Amino acid sequence: MNRQVLGIDIGGTNTALGIVNARGEILATGNISTRGHRDFETFSRALLAETRRICAEAGLDMPSAIGVGAPSGNIQNGMIERTANLEWPTPLPAAKILSEVFGLPVAVSNDANAAAIGEMTYGAARGLTDFIMITLGTGVGSGVVCDGRLITGREGLAGELGHIIIRRNGRPCGCGRRGCLETYTSATGVVTTIRQMLADNPDEPSSLRSIPDDQLTSLAAYEAAMAGDSLARRVFDFTGTVLGEALADFASFTSPKAFVLFGGLARSGELLLAPLRKAFEENALFFHTGGKVDILLSQLPSAHAALLGASAIAWQA
Amino acid sequence: MNRQVLGIDIGGTNTALGIVNARGEILATGNISTRGHRDFETFSRALLAETRRICAEAGLDMPSAIGVGAPSGNIQNGMIERTANLEWPTPLPAAKILSEVFGLPVAVSNDANAAAIGEMTYGAARGLTDFIMITLGTGVGSGVVCDGRLITGREGLAGELGHIIIRRNGRPCGCGRRGCLETYTSATGVVTTIRQMLADNPDEPSSLRSIPDDQLTSLAAYEAAMAGDSLARRVFDFTGTVLGEALADFASFTSPKAFVLFGGLARSGELLLAPLRKAFEENALFFHTGGKVDILLSQLPSAHAALLGASAIAWQA
Repeated sequence: MNRQVLGIDIGGTNTALGIVNARGEILATGNISTRGHRDFETFSRALLAETRRICAEAGLDMPSAIGVGAPSGNIQNGMIERTANLEWPTPLPAAKILSEVFGLPVAVSNDANAAAIGEMTYGAARGLTDFIMITLGTGVGSGVVCDGRLITGREGLAGELGHIIIRRNGRPCGCGRRGCLETYTSATGVVTTIRQMLADNPDEPSSLRSIPDDQLTSLAAYEAAMAGDSLARRVFDFTGTVLGEALADFASFTSPKAFVLFGGLARSGELLLAPLRKAFEENALFFHTGGKVDILLSQLPSAHAALLGASAIAWQA
Repeated sequence: MNRQVLGIDIGGTNTALGIVNARGEILATGNISTRGHRDFETFSRALLAETRRICAEAGLDMPSAIGVGAPSGNIQNGMIERTANLEWPTPLPAAKILSEVFGLPVAVSNDANAAAIGEMTYGAARGLTDFIMITLGTGVGSGVVCDGRLITGREGLAGELGHIIIRRNGRPCGCGRRGCLETYTSATGVVTTIRQMLADNPDEPSSLRSIPDDQLTSLAAYEAAMAGDSLARRVFDFTGTVLGEALADFASFTSPKAFVLFGGLARSGELLLAPLRKAFEENALFFHTGGKVDILLSQLPSAHAALLGASAIAWQA
């Protein structure tokens, strides 16, 4: 096969596509609206037309395989299992339909698993056979790689580490339970922590008090913390500590060589990493302490991370 | 190769060996003392002599491969990594030395991983590609199988699920930390629970009060509970609940089709399983509830389970 694949990142509104080579270089990009297509087959034909257009424009051959990142994409069976954000009925046989329209092999995955394979193929996890990808976004996702292979499990449902219970009877989670990791370490979880710290320390000055409640974000806390705001710093201390405790348990499960963190919160750097590493060392089994497990940041450029992740699974198609 | 392998179960005092066929039938057994050999090579020669003796006696050909179960045996590199119970210096290249002495391929594993492969080869996990073995003994061990392969991880240290922290700042553990699963759900953990319940309920009658403190065991609690002792029943309710909460989190990690429980406590049957299943259903992510994950009991005969586990990894050697 030629050494170029097509990555497709299906979002709720927009679908990005890109031709990517084996070094992770994006040779051409395009995009179409995700909405307004009669069905997934029509949508697939629009993607084919856009792919032909960008290949022609850049003087490229058509790609030899396709990787798709989509909400609740199942890498085992190529289905989009369920989703609130797409217009089509689910479960949707996305890989099958795309493969028929393009005449190419297609692999489908959720965003976190695509990110894991993206890091292994082009990013921070190159050369690693055992690592865990943690995506810190609106929720917390993960991809677990053991012996060079992504763990998929029964029905492709493995790696839901955002829903490990880290505080029994803790914060309520969208999944209906309490105390899930993502209620503490997602961007939304950080906002909950900000609100709680502001309420618990009514007399402590903080620049975060001048921000309207509905405009509080983890980025605002980051900026305040970097400017020396003590309460905002404690928000990151708490978040990093909870995440470090969780990663310590995860290490006893699959004994990874590294964790790779991705997403807005991961860009907080040492503000998050310093308390995280401390909590990891204090809470991990002695097999894993003393710096034996690396805590790495994603090396996929954030603007194209989802596209690169999607393209990476094409190499496995 | 012929269809018989040698299983060797190295214990602190005694080493059992057996010739096993692909159906898990033990065709001949023998044993030698683990102690009193000058070094591991001398011990290996004594094992070879015993193997020749039992094969001759039973009219069998010599086996075609060897599987060894040993404390802290590392399936990745064939070493016995460290141990308080054996006389030899560690790390010990057990697979290498045995292979030289016998002239056969040798695989080495710890007991829990051997049990996992034993269940997959001959027992409750036949035909399952995704399951987690939990051994409930003096400690709590585990073996994690994904897509038909045992997860080994960095340095072969994967699957230490007895050291997942299930109660933060909980009971002190031999590993130096607090709240590890094995401080609650091992045989020793159950004895701690008995003592605690007796102390917390000084006015409640219980047949367990007539047993001297240093003779309390999980078996005594089992017998009392089966005879209707209410406090003893609550010991199993508590133990099963803690284990169910832990398995619920484990399900979000690798999405197994089943858990297989092994060891003395697993023989408590519904006393343990009823509260365990209830806690699992109440605590697992909705992907895994409604009976989608089976909680199974080991099907390896308890007298020969370690030997069968050891022999099972020989098929992979």
